Amino acid sequence: MLVFMKTGDLSQRERILKTAAQLFARRGFHAVGMTELQEAVQLGRGALYHHIRSKEELLYDISREYISDLIASATEAGEEQDAREIIQRLGRDLVHKIASHQAELTVCFREVHSLTAERHAEVMDLHVRYEGLWRSAMKKGADQGCFRPYDSILLKGVLGMYFYSYLWLRPGGALGSNVIAERLNELALRMLARDSVAN
Amino acid sequence: MLVFMKTGDLSQRERILKTAAQLFARRGFHAVGMTELQEAVQLGRGALYHHIRSKEELLYDISREYISDLIASATEAGEEQDAREIIQRLGRDLVHKIASHQAELTVCFREVHSLTAERHAEVMDLHVRYEGLWRSAMKKGADQGCFRPYDSILLKGVLGMYFYSYLWLRPGGALGSNVIAERLNELALRMLARDSVAN
Repeated sequence: MLVFMKTGDLSQRERILKTAAQLFARRGFHAVGMTELQEAVQLGRGALYHHIRSKEELLYDISREYISDLIASATEAGEEQDAREIIQRLGRDLVHKIASHQAELTVCFREVHSLTAERHAEVMDLHVRYEGLWRSAMKKGADQGCFRPYDSILLKGVLGMYFYSYLWLRPGGALGSNVIAERLNELALRMLARDSVAN
Repeated sequence: MLVFMKTGDLSQRERILKTAAQLFARRGFHAVGMTELQEAVQLGRGALYHHIRSKEELLYDISREYISDLIASATEAGEEQDAREIIQRLGRDLVHKIASHQAELTVCFREVHSLTAERHAEVMDLHVRYEGLWRSAMKKGADQGCFRPYDSILLKGVLGMYFYSYLWLRPGGALGSNVIAERLNELALRMLARDSVAN
């Protein structure tokens, strides 16, 4: 395990994960073979297998790492006092992660069912934990009196709005991810606001 | 082609499509073979190939039919006078289609990239047309003075909220799809409302 702690190897491993995610996103997990991955990362089979154990393990790591990062940043954001501030940080971090890890999210959304039962359960559990941090922020806002009472459709509606952007976000597009995050945050706060303006 | 126009064959074909969608959603498009599908629909190879030409064609039909239906109902809804009424009909029809065709949406979201270039383009074009009908309703509402000015992030945000429900909607769950549609519609109208309450 020590090998993963050395900086050189860490970045080599990250390069392999990133390249694999991009290949899987472009051509499909099942269509990409290890030989193709070897060529893409310009490593021999031995060197490649020094960093990864199997194609399924790659899928597992790709699916797990971005959501683990999101849990870490959301846990930190949850320490803010103001629930509106928490939601805005959660939204900003999520949009930036989607923009920087679009291939990883694409692969996870498409292929998470290809993981073995145990690994599938673990990745789904990370998503449940992440969702729980949004739930806490929404409940905190309701307690503070700035958000409407919490319910699960509100949570799913807000998360859906953000997550769906993995399909349309263009990192090099005319609208930068800062602008997109701000706009989606504004929509989330409208959804969460205590007083309805819709009726 | 005449064979598809006979009622008996139509429903047989629909049964095959529905079963295939459920198999693909559960086990993955690449993991399911034609023999497994034959067994699931209880048809011999000859009888099965009377209705479909290939596994890719099944994927094509699964991906195309629900969105074609949505375009038809959204075109009709677009004739309403009141833009808020149009949005509510679009939202209701979408949630009901997701609830009744959850396997089809799951397969399309996961596997649309497995289609040949031409078929992929055709299915994506149907999604663009469907999105265009939501755009028209949003612009109509802006012209009528009940919605804020249209922009593309607003469109993607609203659509994302609805579409993401293919991942969490439980047709037999405690909340029926009517209730879910009403709640998501209310959130959509909050996002679209002219006056901001969020700031």
